[in-house]
Amino acid sequence: MSGTIYMIPVALGESDPALTIPGGTREKTLSLRVFAVEDIRTSRRWLKGLDRTFPVDSTLFFPVGKHSDPSGLDEFFTLVSGGADAGVMSEAGMPGLADPGNIVASEAHRRGIRVVPLSGPSSVMLALVASGLNGQMFSFNGYLPVDTQGRRKAIRDLERISAGGRTQIFMETPFRNGRMIEDILAVCQPSTRLCIAADISLPSEFIRTMSIAEWRRQVPGLDKRPAVFLLLA
Amino acid sequence: MSGTIYMIPVALGESDPALTIPGGTREKTLSLRVFAVEDIRTSRRWLKGLDRTFPVDSTLFFPVGKHSDPSGLDEFFTLVSGGADAGVMSEAGMPGLADPGNIVASEAHRRGIRVVPLSGPSSVMLALVASGLNGQMFSFNGYLPVDTQGRRKAIRDLERISAGGRTQIFMETPFRNGRMIEDILAVCQPSTRLCIAADISLPSEFIRTMSIAEWRRQVPGLDKRPAVFLLLA
Repeated sequence: MSGTIYMIPVALGESDPALTIPGGTREKTLSLRVFAVEDIRTSRRWLKGLDRTFPVDSTLFFPVGKHSDPSGLDEFFTLVSGGADAGVMSEAGMPGLADPGNIVASEAHRRGIRVVPLSGPSSVMLALVASGLNGQMFSFNGYLPVDTQGRRKAIRDLERISAGGRTQIFMETPFRNGRMIEDILAVCQPSTRLCIAADISLPSEFIRTMSIAEWRRQVPGLDKRPAVFLLLA
Repeated sequence: MSGTIYMIPVALGESDPALTIPGGTREKTLSLRVFAVEDIRTSRRWLKGLDRTFPVDSTLFFPVGKHSDPSGLDEFFTLVSGGADAGVMSEAGMPGLADPGNIVASEAHRRGIRVVPLSGPSSVMLALVASGLNGQMFSFNGYLPVDTQGRRKAIRDLERISAGGRTQIFMETPFRNGRMIEDILAVCQPSTRLCIAADISLPSEFIRTMSIAEWRRQVPGLDKRPAVFLLLA
């Protein structure tokens, strides 16, 4: 009989796991010896952080590439089909949300292997519920184009779509936050609401929803802090 | 100085809180004596379940109506502005996601009150990561129309939109699951992938992603089990 694949959340940043990782998630994670992961080094450190006696050296890690297809995971799936339970972890938050961890779950379903999601933090989800913006209709759009023209067009499009009441969520690589905020404030309508959520679940957490007009009067400096952006016209 | 408003997740169904509620979330929840909640009775029971010595009778609960505006929450906000920390809870999962809890967070931002999201389970999020469908671009659509014609049209529209690679997520009231599944199987293309995720985080959890053609050969009976549906053409 096949094993089960667990989708395992990891804390956001260097926070104490006890704050955001449920006991059930921790226990299940520590019981596994086979993992498909976004980054092997980070994952080994995470497991050691959960329990410093965790036997990382006798645990198998398989990398999930950024644009990978599941063909590199043949050995991983052979182990699971043979009865081993396994975990999927990304570098932070829920695997398969805003990262390519879904490739593993997708292939599992194709093979008839059970997939079980474990509870924990997701920056997208936490940003949404703290934003006060509509959580009954929303869209997550991942990363926007990196060139100014493309990004501004994307922001304008999202603002327009959001006018029906659908919150639009997107992310940016931390070192580009400044330019992202600049572009949002440049192209959006004064009355559009913008939530900026940075360092979620960390002591330095910053989550604030204001109109574009209000943000223009106090542009935040969020350089190098992981952030989620939410728009609602 | 104002207090802080915490967005507090609640377990999905009658599962052991230790499985899905982090220690940090539990501790913070138990430290509060002011709550805005979807249902007072359920919330009292939840708090007693977290700790049976919790003083529910000396705790203040304010109902967040289904279609309420924040005007009924004046006393709640007076307490928070006066320095009391407070919590927002829905009947299950994350408040403000697929329920009207965002009204409280929205008003808090308007008043300049800090909103902090606590980690825990969200059926929408857990269904998404376990589905294997695209988690880098997705939309949550809440509940679809209840009449057959309206619902079938909505399903067709979502399938069409999903063809760009954007996972479409929606819910149904448990007693209508049968009709929802019937309508999805009636109108979608055979190759479209459908994930049905029911009883998430419970011992009876059922999460499966297959093509419409495959589902047609084995229609699941999910009567009265809370479910999330995900489509990707």
